[in-house]
Amino acid sequence: MTPRTTRVVCLVRRPDGEPVTGDFAVEERPLPSLGEGQLLVRNLYMSVDPSMRGRLESTEKHYTHNFTPGSPLDGRALGVVEESRCSSVPAGAYVRHQLGWRERAVLDAADTDGAGRIDPELAPLPTWLGLLGQTGFTAYVGLARIAEVRPGDTVFVSAAAGAVGSAAGQFARLLGAERVVGTAGGPDKCALLVKEFGYDAAADYRAEPVREALARMAPDGIDVYFDNVGGEQLAAALHALRTGGRVALCGMMSQFGGERRSAGSGQRSADINQLIQAVLKRLTLRGFIVRDHEDLRPEFEERVAGWLRTGRIAARETVVDGLENAPGALLSLLDGGNVGKMLVRLGDSA
Amino acid sequence: MTPRTTRVVCLVRRPDGEPVTGDFAVEERPLPSLGEGQLLVRNLYMSVDPSMRGRLESTEKHYTHNFTPGSPLDGRALGVVEESRCSSVPAGAYVRHQLGWRERAVLDAADTDGAGRIDPELAPLPTWLGLLGQTGFTAYVGLARIAEVRPGDTVFVSAAAGAVGSAAGQFARLLGAERVVGTAGGPDKCALLVKEFGYDAAADYRAEPVREALARMAPDGIDVYFDNVGGEQLAAALHALRTGGRVALCGMMSQFGGERRSAGSGQRSADINQLIQAVLKRLTLRGFIVRDHEDLRPEFEERVAGWLRTGRIAARETVVDGLENAPGALLSLLDGGNVGKMLVRLGDSA
Repeated sequence: MTPRTTRVVCLVRRPDGEPVTGDFAVEERPLPSLGEGQLLVRNLYMSVDPSMRGRLESTEKHYTHNFTPGSPLDGRALGVVEESRCSSVPAGAYVRHQLGWRERAVLDAADTDGAGRIDPELAPLPTWLGLLGQTGFTAYVGLARIAEVRPGDTVFVSAAAGAVGSAAGQFARLLGAERVVGTAGGPDKCALLVKEFGYDAAADYRAEPVREALARMAPDGIDVYFDNVGGEQLAAALHALRTGGRVALCGMMSQFGGERRSAGSGQRSADINQLIQAVLKRLTLRGFIVRDHEDLRPEFEERVAGWLRTGRIAARETVVDGLENAPGALLSLLDGGNVGKMLVRLGDSA
Repeated sequence: MTPRTTRVVCLVRRPDGEPVTGDFAVEERPLPSLGEGQLLVRNLYMSVDPSMRGRLESTEKHYTHNFTPGSPLDGRALGVVEESRCSSVPAGAYVRHQLGWRERAVLDAADTDGAGRIDPELAPLPTWLGLLGQTGFTAYVGLARIAEVRPGDTVFVSAAAGAVGSAAGQFARLLGAERVVGTAGGPDKCALLVKEFGYDAAADYRAEPVREALARMAPDGIDVYFDNVGGEQLAAALHALRTGGRVALCGMMSQFGGERRSAGSGQRSADINQLIQAVLKRLTLRGFIVRDHEDLRPEFEERVAGWLRTGRIAARETVVDGLENAPGALLSLLDGGNVGKMLVRLGDSA
């Protein structure tokens, strides 16, 4: 009994300033019938990511398509195969794919990743979208390849209680960092950084200038900055970096909206000429997009699965229930309302 | 008849805003007597460099010492040995060293570089401080090692009529760049870029927004930006760079003086969050200090001497006469009054 329709979240209109829930609507849309090599997947979890903010705008992003008013959103999701016309991915298999923001999806088996490799015995399903998914992979690529974390390094991570940041702090330590410090919004998150995510020190960027916080947390300077926010935190890091320091530029939540540079996304900006520090101290700054680094994925999955198995890292997710609450989950994420990976549960795995 | 004193240029006081000639004074200072392994050098040429601007301030620079009020300035110079207590560097040899801003200097032979290697037959003396000196070496390191210029690249150079920029444009081409474009202050310099320094196109940053100039000069984008100025030119380059682009951060003349961001040093600034372009397009930005790359010097000297010999590059210097005019030469340099390398002639080589 193949369902003929599915509920999807559509973009109603591009946000006028900050996005609001009225920019989104849940609609019923037809599902195509299965062609050869295709799967019908019932989604169980979908990911909500900071990068979706930019995709709501009209400005082209160079590395992905933007959302279109009147059409469903998309994004990473994990589901169970209900029907299959691909012999290598049978019904009952768990697959990850790109058609989130909907309860069911028809897709080519070739467009799933890790098909057959998602073993719910190895790690809980949400972890496959978090520490073992793009989120964890982003943190791993940024530290291991882009910033080349080395034994003895002092590493600074911003947005450290977020999905990527909470992974980055833990990975940095396991990659040999001697000291790991981070910033987050609010005292509760800062407490979590130290208690749960293994940071040596944490600072609330809302309560203290980051330059002063770094002078306190890393008085001898830092070797690596994993940047999730840009703005004044990047400028503060440039001042704190030691000679030969490295910056992995992962994304800049502080770039969105001239009218909104406080609270969650939360950074005042700074002058580009702070980059004179990069000359004086021979710094390297590298931007990266994780999908350029698929060659690193096997190494990543093996190491992180091992760290999970032996209890050396803690997976932490913030889970919201129900497709209709997915837009609210995105808005909450952009406002800093999550700890760890932000997910929406779309169905029951039973 | 060893002279007992020498004329030197001293810093009288740190500049209050922009430096003025009254911040400097020519004084007579004693010369120490020669110790074992030392040389008395009569300086013939001294270099005037943009980086000297920062050394006038009190803020520490991480890579060199700052000038001290009441003491002589220093900087790269070239002279002839008048007396020697070092057997490997006889009287009459030409040496390069760090004690410029004075007519004579006593120094350790070990502190000279290229001693005995400066052959006035191979290239004129001024060229040993320009294309074959730190200036040319800075351009070479920035292009060949930091930005890794590759055949087919489109390369953009700012301050392109300056000492480093006029070398960089010529070197970029010889390193395989397909297209080389530059910016400079004023139509005369722009004409020189194309006529003398081999640039394919040039733009006057005073007359046209650099972002528009780049769209015109390099409509398909750029692969490499050799940055001498920071500010809005750096921001414009970030927008023009193609995926995988590289930026060599060499220095930021636009960083000096909040009150002075026009004319010669000449850049308005920009927001550090323009670095979001580095994420979207996987850019790498690297600051560098040339003295970290001495291992590249033999390759550099061999290649550039070859290019000079075969007439493939043009050396161009702006030469001011006399120690008493050295402060004015520095002020003129900071105001963009030079084409190519700015030198002060301190004596006659005859």
